[in-house]
Amino acid sequence: MTTLRELLIEELQDLFHAEKQLIKALPKMAKAATNEELKAGFTEHLAQTEGHVTRLEKAFAALGEPAKAKTCPAMKGLIEEGNEAISENECSPVLDAQLIGSAQRVEHYEIAAYGTARSFAESLGETEVAALLQETLDEEGETNKKLTALSETVNAEALAVSAVELDDDEKE
Amino acid sequence: MTTLRELLIEELQDLFHAEKQLIKALPKMAKAATNEELKAGFTEHLAQTEGHVTRLEKAFAALGEPAKAKTCPAMKGLIEEGNEAISENECSPVLDAQLIGSAQRVEHYEIAAYGTARSFAESLGETEVAALLQETLDEEGETNKKLTALSETVNAEALAVSAVELDDDEKE
Repeated sequence: MTTLRELLIEELQDLFHAEKQLIKALPKMAKAATNEELKAGFTEHLAQTEGHVTRLEKAFAALGEPAKAKTCPAMKGLIEEGNEAISENECSPVLDAQLIGSAQRVEHYEIAAYGTARSFAESLGETEVAALLQETLDEEGETNKKLTALSETVNAEALAVSAVELDDDEKE
Repeated sequence: MTTLRELLIEELQDLFHAEKQLIKALPKMAKAATNEELKAGFTEHLAQTEGHVTRLEKAFAALGEPAKAKTCPAMKGLIEEGNEAISENECSPVLDAQLIGSAQRVEHYEIAAYGTARSFAESLGETEVAALLQETLDEEGETNKKLTALSETVNAEALAVSAVELDDDEKE
């Protein structure tokens, strides 16, 4: 039978993989974004994500476990959806709106996974690990809030270009 | 080029598929759970999820669009992970802890997707659609909070059986 400690290690392996995939995806998202604030946000989150990887390495070390990544099909799916949106669409405020939606799904995935891992660590009395995970959890929550705040402007820009597009269609 | 309205419809199709998958998964999760409160919670959320499907149908109708489901690979992955945990493990508090982790990933996925769809609807001035999505979003948030509250008890139960397991291993 699996133990709670093994579940914690699996969560960390899953998150390790997720963060590493995100490090590959964020530069593409930053490159594709037209809204300057969104572009800067993705770049900033890349630096933060590198810090999340370091914290996970510390958490593995605190548990005396090797830092290992385990593929999570769901997170892989989320990253692929973002990549597809980028390759199938021109850069525009509508793509920006799509990228925010995609990034918020990733953030929420991480919020759920870090929350679960932190609660396992707490129950196991692994306070150092729990504190490391909480730090990252707080940052993911902040990033998600920033994306929500930014979505209002970006949606308005997307609506404006959508209206122009519809107008052009009518003229054709 | 895609318009903001098309993005909204895609989000609704994605959520329609997600909720329908969840309707199939929740009875299995309720059956597998050993903690009575968790079992009841999954059953209660099943009834709620059926209501979410109805609200999505109303949202499609308000937009004059057919209610259609679009497979989302990420959500499919999340549901499969839960199913695998159930088929590979015996019913126990450790599986309960795993099921809570799995359910919270699903809830967070939905929170992100409903949040995005609601903000698209608001920007488009589709106030009826936005209100329908907000109602479900609130319920998903409540479900997530209940799962967090329950995880403390369930983790303690999981830790207790993990300790017994380790003790038995030492005696062998």
